[in-house]
Order: sequence, then C-alpha cells, then structure tokens
Amino acid sequence: MQFRVDYQSRETRGRVGVLTTEHSQIQTPCFMPVGTQATVKTLSQEELTELGAEIILSNTYHLYLRPGHELIAELGGLHSFMSWSGSILTDSGGFQVFSLSKLREITEEGVHFRSHLDGSKHFFTPELAIEIQEALGADIIMCFDECISLPAEREYIEESVARTTRWAERCLKAHKRKDQALFGIVQGGTDPDLRLVSAKDLVSLGFPGYSIGGLSVGEPKEEMYKILEVLDPVLPEDKPRYLMGVGSPDCLLEGVARGVDMFDCVLPTRIARNGTVFTRQGRLTVRDAPYSRDPQPLDPDCSCKVCQNYSRAYIRHLLKTGEVLGLRLTTYHNVHFLLQLMAEVREHLLRGDFLAFKEDFLRRYGD
Amino acid sequence: MQFRVDYQSRETRGRVGVLTTEHSQIQTPCFMPVGTQATVKTLSQEELTELGAEIILSNTYHLYLRPGHELIAELGGLHSFMSWSGSILTDSGGFQVFSLSKLREITEEGVHFRSHLDGSKHFFTPELAIEIQEALGADIIMCFDECISLPAEREYIEESVARTTRWAERCLKAHKRKDQALFGIVQGGTDPDLRLVSAKDLVSLGFPGYSIGGLSVGEPKEEMYKILEVLDPVLPEDKPRYLMGVGSPDCLLEGVARGVDMFDCVLPTRIARNGTVFTRQGRLTVRDAPYSRDPQPLDPDCSCKVCQNYSRAYIRHLLKTGEVLGLRLTTYHNVHFLLQLMAEVREHLLRGDFLAFKEDFLRRYGD
Repeated sequence: MQFRVDYQSRETRGRVGVLTTEHSQIQTPCFMPVGTQATVKTLSQEELTELGAEIILSNTYHLYLRPGHELIAELGGLHSFMSWSGSILTDSGGFQVFSLSKLREITEEGVHFRSHLDGSKHFFTPELAIEIQEALGADIIMCFDECISLPAEREYIEESVARTTRWAERCLKAHKRKDQALFGIVQGGTDPDLRLVSAKDLVSLGFPGYSIGGLSVGEPKEEMYKILEVLDPVLPEDKPRYLMGVGSPDCLLEGVARGVDMFDCVLPTRIARNGTVFTRQGRLTVRDAPYSRDPQPLDPDCSCKVCQNYSRAYIRHLLKTGEVLGLRLTTYHNVHFLLQLMAEVREHLLRGDFLAFKEDFLRRYGD
Repeated sequence: MQFRVDYQSRETRGRVGVLTTEHSQIQTPCFMPVGTQATVKTLSQEELTELGAEIILSNTYHLYLRPGHELIAELGGLHSFMSWSGSILTDSGGFQVFSLSKLREITEEGVHFRSHLDGSKHFFTPELAIEIQEALGADIIMCFDECISLPAEREYIEESVARTTRWAERCLKAHKRKDQALFGIVQGGTDPDLRLVSAKDLVSLGFPGYSIGGLSVGEPKEEMYKILEVLDPVLPEDKPRYLMGVGSPDCLLEGVARGVDMFDCVLPTRIARNGTVFTRQGRLTVRDAPYSRDPQPLDPDCSCKVCQNYSRAYIRHLLKTGEVLGLRLTTYHNVHFLLQLMAEVREHLLRGDFLAFKEDFLRRYGD
C-alpha cells in the first residue's frame, strides 16, 4: 500500500491524496461503505462499482463466526469470495467483541467472549485477529484493540491504552503478509493526554497508517473534534488517518477539516433500511405519511439513478409494504450521497474553497 | 393492442407471435414476471429491462388495498408510479379475493370480502374491477371472474361458469379505455364440457384475448394439459391465449406445445426467496449445507450476470445470514432462467425442432 498527499489545504488541516493498493486507487479523503457480512447490505458489487466506491470495509468478527475465515481462504480470500475487485479494509474484531458479544473477559493474552449468534465460546488474541485477517486477505487490516465504553475511569483508560499498545506490538510481530497494510488504532477515550500517549506509542512502533478508534460512541461531537485536533500534530503527515465508525455528513466535513483521510460507518445503510434518507436539506424520513403522494425524487438536488427514476410516493409504498426494492433504493441513494459528498469535498479542497463549501453545506443541511 | 401469429409449428400446436401494446413489443410465447405490489420482488425495473422482460404482471387486489388505485392514478398510473416503460398486465383481483381474503360472500352483484391485511370490509363487482384497472392503466386487463376451489360439485362449477360469463359481459360494458385490451377468463375447473361452455360463451362475446384461469391449483398436471387440448380448437387462433399462474419449466413447455402464448407465475421469485434455483439439471436448493464450499455458479450452463460473478458458496452465505443480496441473486437467476427458456422455445419453434428441444430439456431437467 502506498499513500501520497497531493495537496494540503491552507484554510484547514484537510488534505487530498491517493491511497494505492493492489486492487485500486483510492482518492482521499474517502468514505468506505460497510459490508459487515461480505455484502454492503442490499447492494450488489456491480452497484458499488457504479457508485464509485473504491474501497469497502468488512468485519472480521462476523466473518470469523459465519462463514468462517478458513472457508473464505479456501475460496480464494474475501475479494474472490464476494467477487469484489476494489479494495477492502477489515477491522480487527475488537469493536464487535466489545459491543456485540456476551460475557467478555479481558486478560493480557486476549479476550474471552461468547458469540452473539449462538453463545459459543471464543478467545480472540492479537495473533488470532491477524491470522483471521490474513486468511480474509483484505488490503488494509487493523490491530486488535480494546474498545472501552465511555465514560470510564482515567485509570482504566490508561491501563487499556497501554494494553492496546502491547497488543499492537504483538500484531506487528504476527503479521506476515506483505501485500496487506496493518494500521495501528489510537485509543484513549476522550482524554486528550491519554490519546497523545496512545498515538505517540503507536507512532514509535511505525505503522503504515493510523486509525482513530473509540469515538462517536455517544460523546458530544465537540469532544471528538477536540481529540482530532490534539492528535493532528502527533500523527505523521505522510501516513493515512482513518476515523473509525464515523459517517454523518457533518462529522465527515469536520473530520476532513481536521486532517482525516478515511471514514467508515453503517449510518447511511442503516438509516436507509429504516426509511430515512440524506438530502441536501437534511434527513428525510420518506416512510412518513406526508410523502405518500409526493411525486418528487428523494432529493431533488441529487443526480443518482434512484432520484432520476423513482418518486418518494413509490419508495414509501415499497417500504410500507415491506418490499426489498424499497431498501435497495434508499440504501443506494444514501451511499451515493456520501460518496458524492466526499468527491465534492476533494474538489473544493483542491480549489481552495473547502471552508466556504463546508459552511454552506452545513447551513443547508442543518444537522 | 395487436397480436400477430408469425409462425405455426407443424409438430405441435405451438406458435410464435408478437403482441404489440402502446408500451412494448412482446415476443410470444412469453413468460411474465409477477410484480404483485408494483415491484417484482427484490428486482429493480432496470434489472427487469436488462433481463429482457417485455411485460410484467401486477395485482389489482393488492394495489387496490395498498397504496390504492386512486393514489396510483394521481401519480400518472402504474407505469409512471413504478417507473416501468415496458408493458403491464393486471389481473382482475378475482383470484386473490378467493385465495387470500377472508369471509367471502358471493352474490350475483359481486363479492363481499375482508382484507387479508386489516380485516376491513370490501365489495368487488365486475364494474369496480374494471374501474380499478382503468385507474391503474395496465396495457392488458382482466375480467372479474370467480375462481372456485377444486374439487367442486359439477352443479356448482356450472353455476359459477355461467356467473363468470355474466360478469364478463358486465366488464365489457363497463370498460371504456380504448388503450387497454380486456381479456375474458375461461373457467370450468377440470370439467372439459364446462370449460368448453365457458370458452364458447366468452368467444361469442368477442374479446381481444383469452385467459385460462383456475388451473395449476393442485390438480394433476395431466388434467391441466387435457383442458388445454380441449380448449385449443374453440379459442380463436388469431387471439392470444394466456395460461394464468403457471410457471414451472415443464408446464411452460407443455403449455406452449398446446398453443399457449402467455404465462405468469410467482414460482421463480418465490422459490428464489426460499433459496431454490432452477438449473438445466433441475431445481437446486443452494441454501443447503453441501453448497457451503462450492465455488461453482448456481447453474454452470447459465450465462446470466449472477452465474458469471458469484459462487454457490457466497450465495449460500448470504442466504444463511439473511442478507438481501442473496434473495436478489437467486431471484435474478430464476427470472433469467425462465425468460431465457422462452427465448429458446421461440427459436426452436421457428427452427421446427421444438419437440426435440422439449424432450431433451425435460430429460435433463427431470421435474
């Protein structure tokens, strides 16, 4: 994997670059649609290509449980298994172990947990997280980290940050595949000092990219922005920075302004399945009664295939009657919305008027 | 609507023709995918076009209940509402009133029933069935008929056939839109004499096309084939013949051999959602465990997009984890299978070797 910063904005810390993997060139800053179970929910790989997705994310925890990483390796790895020719990033399973699974017990060696599916017992270690991710074969993979829930005692966060660093060292040591880039994950909750400790420790280990984990978990957005500002001078400028699990339009813009290159989030696909779509005027719940006779597209300002062809009234009918096409159309639109937003972000960064674009977007969007 | 028979097979009663509506030219014999609620389940209209569907079917009963025919009319009719540029056929609601709804009471005037959705009371008459279908605006519409359940007393079938003819007269009288072709529906259960009575009565009323209803409802296939043979000499050769609700590959071939021009059925889309697909070697339940590591496409003999890109192992994983893409891929393949089969049927009829093609297909398919 190679990363090249082509342009550094003067108005903000935003930058435009290109991330190159064996599978694709990724224009940054980028948003990565999430394909938890080796599928971006409701979309086909052909549609993802059509939408311009250059990289998608998939989840180690889910694929380890079903269908199993060994089965995927046997079928040629994740790209081949799901027939996706673009790039893939896998998380380490850390976040899911702490957010989804039951009965966790953390030791220095790793984490004991029970599957959220059938209650079966499992034990994840940094080495196993790397082994699974090597079997899956994504282009970019993550160190196994501890994701604490906030608020937490400072002492506990400190201990957890230190353990995450020790686990990162073990991941680096265990990682053998040279065609994969292994990112370290900065933790430390909302404590600026501990975030700095975590970042400095990881930077001293020397990763090809840095993820920022454990944010957007309920804390005020201002606290997240502050952490990004604290980390900015510590993270190497020539390495990509990935803000994990963040995907609302306003957070994308504020993240870019603070130097973030990569984002992922289930938000666009999840709210779509609940009948809510992004528009330039803010979110719209097309499932609601007022849209039952509305001949307009989801977003009159949108150029996507869905907005060119289908009305709010039709999509509402599909959602109300439980038809799959309804979920497909709202999802397609929402993913298009964020990918298009990021394309515009890159354009305005290069033009030097990103700040004005951001202010104008946020004023209209009003979220 | 115009219908032209271009070629009459000498080996069988099969024929090749073209049905022309204001929206499309339809090569016959044809299979019509079913879009019950103004969507062919899991597929987009773009995909239907890509699959070569020239006409689809939609259900009057369902659209009357949700979202309502008046709402659809307000939005420009069904073609505009669902953004489908091909042809549409709507049934009359007769079959659904008798198969889905609750607490029916049949009078000479019409049928009282309760919605299967919320138990609300409704009263369908031949006139209302036409009014709804005119509001929906399909290219081909159906007379309101009584669909009896089999077995039934001869006396009851006789009475029902007579009533269906009287209702057909009322439909003809009520039907005003000149851009829609109204078909009569032959009933009469599995009684050849009553089928003849029904067909002769309807033919004397003079419809632009004839549907054959009330078959494939559990009776042996041989009985259905026999009815088709009995009706063949009575139905005018220059009008299209539509066998309602029939869609298994063997029935399509046997129906074509007996002079049928049009078919529709939920079978390909319904079995797809249960994880079963058509292959040239018969049905295959890809949801089953033996396919968990199978790198082959659903049908190695198939040229569809799904079979070019995705493996049984991947599709099984999607179905087992409840992912929408799994339903999309099996549905797309099954609809492709039947549309492709009908294209080959037309080709072999024209070449004069349809009988050999049919025998060869059935031997391999073995259903």
